[in-house]
Amino acid sequence: MSDQARIVPVILSGGAGSRLWPMSRPEMPKQMLPLTSDHTMIQLTAKRTHDADQFAAPIIVSNALHGDIVEAQLRNVAVSPQAIILETIGRNTAPAIALAAIAAGSGDAPLLVMPSDHVIDDVAAFHDAITRALPLVRDGWLMTFGIDPHAPETGYGWIKSGAEIVSGVHQVAHFVEKPPIDRAEAMLAAGDHYWNGGIFLFRADAYLAALATFEPAMLAAAEQAMALAARNGNRIIPDPDAFAASPAESIDYAVMEKADRVAVVPVNMGWSDVGSWDALHALSDCDINGNACQGDVVTLDTTNSLVRTDGIRIAMVGMDNLIVVASGNDVLIVPRGRSQEVKQLLALMKND
Amino acid sequence: MSDQARIVPVILSGGAGSRLWPMSRPEMPKQMLPLTSDHTMIQLTAKRTHDADQFAAPIIVSNALHGDIVEAQLRNVAVSPQAIILETIGRNTAPAIALAAIAAGSGDAPLLVMPSDHVIDDVAAFHDAITRALPLVRDGWLMTFGIDPHAPETGYGWIKSGAEIVSGVHQVAHFVEKPPIDRAEAMLAAGDHYWNGGIFLFRADAYLAALATFEPAMLAAAEQAMALAARNGNRIIPDPDAFAASPAESIDYAVMEKADRVAVVPVNMGWSDVGSWDALHALSDCDINGNACQGDVVTLDTTNSLVRTDGIRIAMVGMDNLIVVASGNDVLIVPRGRSQEVKQLLALMKND
Repeated sequence: MSDQARIVPVILSGGAGSRLWPMSRPEMPKQMLPLTSDHTMIQLTAKRTHDADQFAAPIIVSNALHGDIVEAQLRNVAVSPQAIILETIGRNTAPAIALAAIAAGSGDAPLLVMPSDHVIDDVAAFHDAITRALPLVRDGWLMTFGIDPHAPETGYGWIKSGAEIVSGVHQVAHFVEKPPIDRAEAMLAAGDHYWNGGIFLFRADAYLAALATFEPAMLAAAEQAMALAARNGNRIIPDPDAFAASPAESIDYAVMEKADRVAVVPVNMGWSDVGSWDALHALSDCDINGNACQGDVVTLDTTNSLVRTDGIRIAMVGMDNLIVVASGNDVLIVPRGRSQEVKQLLALMKND
Repeated sequence: MSDQARIVPVILSGGAGSRLWPMSRPEMPKQMLPLTSDHTMIQLTAKRTHDADQFAAPIIVSNALHGDIVEAQLRNVAVSPQAIILETIGRNTAPAIALAAIAAGSGDAPLLVMPSDHVIDDVAAFHDAITRALPLVRDGWLMTFGIDPHAPETGYGWIKSGAEIVSGVHQVAHFVEKPPIDRAEAMLAAGDHYWNGGIFLFRADAYLAALATFEPAMLAAAEQAMALAARNGNRIIPDPDAFAASPAESIDYAVMEKADRVAVVPVNMGWSDVGSWDALHALSDCDINGNACQGDVVTLDTTNSLVRTDGIRIAMVGMDNLIVVASGNDVLIVPRGRSQEVKQLLALMKND
């Protein structure tokens, strides 16, 4: 396999992860935390494409604030990115991926676009899906990964699959943005709908061609930003003014929902976006009382709770179904099932 | 009124207040915390006997570790103790009061013995009770204050009142140690039982005479400790070896339950020993949601809860009837009604 033909992992590390406050903070967001193992989420993401036979060195697109942390964390797992693209301003995923596609050389290299903060338990299943999808991708298809759904999630976009193109890969019939609960339940029951996990595989040139068609201003801004970029070793700082001129749009909205040759490879791989403390509790190995405790935690008669601290000691008696997270100068207390309301808390504190 | 005839307040500050952990700690126990107002419990206690017409300067009996804090806190409310007796070892209340009685001159001065960590809302009622009791006290009676009970408390000792001696003062029929719940309910219903609030009024010489009868070894140890005491200004450090030789006993057990001329003055004065976070919640002014919050606290959809922090920020969503207390490097979380179980937590942490 020639070097050019290898898959280039593109790891998107622009998120703030505010739903996992107080551990996740703007200066140290979720993807840089060891939430599910001793490794951080971005380390786990990079390790999934560590096989040099199939994968080239990754391209990271990161908030400029995190360049040093990202580099240090990846070095710790022996990953040397071919490029770390540092955004001085966020413009959502479509422009970020455009920067990576240009940095990859804009040619026929398949880009495997991955959020930096998701869990994939069954990496072999992920690799199998990549293998199934790759021939179509090399042929120019834009590939989505359709996560086998196990709940009527209203917080995700969904993908309805259409006709099978090759074994285990389908055309996308249409995308469904975050649905109301009744529609989510109907899609779950139908069996031919998948969660959109935000993982994509396509040739760099195919993606840029789609942008040229549907988002020419975005493509122009990305090209200008990269032409004027500051470069230092493997670090690339796209020109801030040029990049700021780009429309801010998700790849789903900018490209995937509009393009013609869009396919979905269904996959059941133990995926989670760890989108809340509730989600993390669901993923955690619990003790005999159903508790997932980490850090200096003392419990008595406490069950089915997630308790984490990176500093102060948490002492609890007589609680059930509680989420407690202490980090830095903050402690969060919320019943299980309501951890999404961290957002409202953050808004309240911002107004203080 | 001659100086000698004035009442000498004796403030007992030996408690560790572990039931109010984590705010109350051995190095800064409950009585030194501003739990119910801007003033600390010991400041509030001293201020109750600030009237120089009736009360002499107080004698404080304190853990030796706290001499500086006690002095500084009392200075802040313009109280100058005539003596601060510093115990290098705790021997319970009977020996502590013996030290104070000796320091007071062992004469006919009435001693008003008060724990340093109780709430008395209605100080006028307290003073009225003192006035009612004083003639009998000057005549040699040992006086207890019988708190008008409003619940079948199993955590307090109780006093059954007997025949009225003078208006509003009764002989003590007998004492009841911490009762089981059914007995507490029966005493509450009976109407002639009171809580033993640990507040006493008696002449120094009457108390020492009772000790000579019932606890001669204790009296000898206290006298020896005071004879050999180190003195520095108003500070008195009883000889540690001599004092350590004293039996450790409560005043109730050593004297009050045994002596003959023991009386009770019933009083309804908004008393609380603030013996738990639940008790403090019951005393607190709550907001419209029933919450008593202090410090950096942010709540959403939270009701009937006590939330206090002296440092880190506490952010809560969707909780009811919860106690959360953060202090130093610790945060306690316990449902209302179970705050007594702090003891079990402390034991568990000690074993770690």
